[in-house]
Amino acid sequence: MSSTSLTALFHPKSIAIIGASDNPDRIGYQVVQSLLLGEFNGQIYPINPRLTVLFELTVYPSIDSVADEVDLAIIVLRKDHVLDAVDACGRKGVKSLIVMSSGFSELGDLTTEQELAKRVKEYGMRMLGPNCAGFVATTERIYASFENRVHSGHLAFISQSGAMCAVILAMSRAVGLGYSMFISYGNATDIGPEEILHYLGEHTPTKLIGCYLEGIKKARQFLTEAQIITPHIPLVVLKPGETQAGTQAIRSHTGAMAGVQAVYAGAFRQAGILQASTLDEFIDACLILSNQKLPHGNRVGIITNSGGPGVLAVDACSQSGLEVNPFPIMLVQEFSSFLPPICPMMNPIDIGPEGSPAIYQRVTEKLLKSPDVDMVLVLCVPTAFSDIVAISEAIVQAEKSNPQKPLVTCWLAEDIIEAGIPTLIEASIPNFATPQRAANALRFLNQRAEWLRSK
Amino acid sequence: MSSTSLTALFHPKSIAIIGASDNPDRIGYQVVQSLLLGEFNGQIYPINPRLTVLFELTVYPSIDSVADEVDLAIIVLRKDHVLDAVDACGRKGVKSLIVMSSGFSELGDLTTEQELAKRVKEYGMRMLGPNCAGFVATTERIYASFENRVHSGHLAFISQSGAMCAVILAMSRAVGLGYSMFISYGNATDIGPEEILHYLGEHTPTKLIGCYLEGIKKARQFLTEAQIITPHIPLVVLKPGETQAGTQAIRSHTGAMAGVQAVYAGAFRQAGILQASTLDEFIDACLILSNQKLPHGNRVGIITNSGGPGVLAVDACSQSGLEVNPFPIMLVQEFSSFLPPICPMMNPIDIGPEGSPAIYQRVTEKLLKSPDVDMVLVLCVPTAFSDIVAISEAIVQAEKSNPQKPLVTCWLAEDIIEAGIPTLIEASIPNFATPQRAANALRFLNQRAEWLRSK
Repeated sequence: MSSTSLTALFHPKSIAIIGASDNPDRIGYQVVQSLLLGEFNGQIYPINPRLTVLFELTVYPSIDSVADEVDLAIIVLRKDHVLDAVDACGRKGVKSLIVMSSGFSELGDLTTEQELAKRVKEYGMRMLGPNCAGFVATTERIYASFENRVHSGHLAFISQSGAMCAVILAMSRAVGLGYSMFISYGNATDIGPEEILHYLGEHTPTKLIGCYLEGIKKARQFLTEAQIITPHIPLVVLKPGETQAGTQAIRSHTGAMAGVQAVYAGAFRQAGILQASTLDEFIDACLILSNQKLPHGNRVGIITNSGGPGVLAVDACSQSGLEVNPFPIMLVQEFSSFLPPICPMMNPIDIGPEGSPAIYQRVTEKLLKSPDVDMVLVLCVPTAFSDIVAISEAIVQAEKSNPQKPLVTCWLAEDIIEAGIPTLIEASIPNFATPQRAANALRFLNQRAEWLRSK
Repeated sequence: MSSTSLTALFHPKSIAIIGASDNPDRIGYQVVQSLLLGEFNGQIYPINPRLTVLFELTVYPSIDSVADEVDLAIIVLRKDHVLDAVDACGRKGVKSLIVMSSGFSELGDLTTEQELAKRVKEYGMRMLGPNCAGFVATTERIYASFENRVHSGHLAFISQSGAMCAVILAMSRAVGLGYSMFISYGNATDIGPEEILHYLGEHTPTKLIGCYLEGIKKARQFLTEAQIITPHIPLVVLKPGETQAGTQAIRSHTGAMAGVQAVYAGAFRQAGILQASTLDEFIDACLILSNQKLPHGNRVGIITNSGGPGVLAVDACSQSGLEVNPFPIMLVQEFSSFLPPICPMMNPIDIGPEGSPAIYQRVTEKLLKSPDVDMVLVLCVPTAFSDIVAISEAIVQAEKSNPQKPLVTCWLAEDIIEAGIPTLIEASIPNFATPQRAANALRFLNQRAEWLRSK
């Protein structure tokens, strides 16, 4: 499998939008708008026989009336018109297609979908979709989708479902998780997740791949591609259908094979795939893997300014298979030199409600430097004494003392800590809403590190 | 144990604040402000020898200079001055105390705390604290705390830790969870959680009790009180220290007994206590129990407009011990009368991305009326076609067709669905951020119902 066959799709120099519209509620409008907002660096050809100008772009009556070469055509017509549009694209010599139109196999119409596949193949084109949301490549500035609120970063996200793309993108925005690409492949009639995986393995801006996977048509091929990629790039999969009832639900809405679900977990583990079982877990795993170095062991050092959350964090770390060992006496002695002797210092170290930004920084730096701590988790419940922005800045400063060691925060009390979050996001320090979510994310980081060491 | 001895504390007609301050950064300012913002219906006596007026209230130089009776004195002085203040209160005949000052047993000073306890007892007073955040009773309009952003509702929350109060209150605001009371009891030197539990059992506005419990000094008494209350009022406990490492952490920061942790789970279950193991779980359980009726069985009916989240919900429900059975043929036939035949209707029923508010309402009403469904979970991922406010209103309308059956929503894609949330909160329909959290909350509701049926 060569990724060059996807070059015209993922690196088009010219894009036509067949079904471009001047109605802002229509996808045919939103896709053109996305391409422009994203500052696409090539030619854009909106196609619509009833329009002449859209966003100051010349609108063409048909694909054949475009004089230049077209690398990619995005088809957003109603299903009835899709086959004709594919023919027109084929005759014109268009190299690749995104068919966003729906109503094919996902709604029971296998016949039209097979015909679509046949024609695409006959013309030697490649196709993403049908029934998909397109793709965005942030580094290349290609927003070939109606989704355009995508921040740039290192995660490539693959999903059959456009709805799951919307959900995951929204959750990502809230935590500052940035994307290199997202790709919604819809019915995978031509290009499926296995081939996209292969492409992403050679996509430089991508440092992490996330995948929402309901069913896989070519499971063996997917696992083979995964095995090639995972030694270099972490791959996190959110795979529903873990229970019998879930399997049934998938069968009824995608017609995907049942029974296969049970064998996935083992095969995934072997292929180095990290499996998330909930949306929160998936986002948290992607967030931490996208910007933290891997730990050399599973020992967590915890800093808190309040006992309760500290204990919740210890519980959560332990339940996640991480160690929270008492700090060595030397380290405790160092803490004692600048903290009141009454502060619990065994791990967690509790710097108390009056713990200042300077104290936070000093203690964080000590743990980042300690050979007895592999990962650092910093908790804060702001009190009347706390300046959460200053504390966030202190953590950012501390991080510089050893950027090689994983460092995450858990700022508790949502509306009170909001002001500190942008500082952390800016510095790529992942913040989690609860101690449990922080611990769970560290578990994924540790699992990745352990798997690589075991190779 | 009689709750009348707590009347002066929780129903004071007059409150003195010893250590009132005109500095907005000080607790002595914030507590007076809270009482005023909360529109306390009795007398407020700020005490501070260096002030004469505060918020247009007369400030008294000392507690003895107040001519009238004082039911409750809130002491916010530095520790060194607390014992003298207690003596002054005792001589004056003050009935109850809240000591917010810290630095006692929690920081190793057992001697002063024992002396404090002795004097409070000698004067026949009752005391909340020391090292506590006070309490708020919303129905009675008593905001005897520096925490004043507490919405009224049915949950009474008890916590040793003031920090956990801040965390839980912030999380509650985000989801519209309202409070009848919150009580931070600090070191429990006089009044502990067991006695507060007893009081709350007779507190009419309270329909649900939540408790953050690190260690219990009087475990047997607590369980006895719980057993009396739980047949009438659900009691949810968030109890850290589930792991060995967590137990050690508690020991080092509260000095509470270790080893006892292991026996709690069983004793809690027997006493009808619902145990949450994470912050999210605690909030979700409280949210659903505070405003939903109990189900008559564990069968969940799921509505979605997108396959993926539907499958995630089925998985999560199954893993939570709930049943997601195929709908009976009669119900599917009813759906078929107004839905395209291609919509998967087996459970989940997937009304598709173009599912309108009217369709949402109709399907929700059918499930609320069906004898084959005990609880209804409605999912929505907004698409370009969706008006999330109108869909939220449709669910509120549907709910009226059978308010006796539990109904929850899961609106996915955070920033896109925000506009719909106030409508749901207003109608007391709990909304959850992910299918897993919704399913987990339904599990708590079902667990409560099953326990009551087993009695």
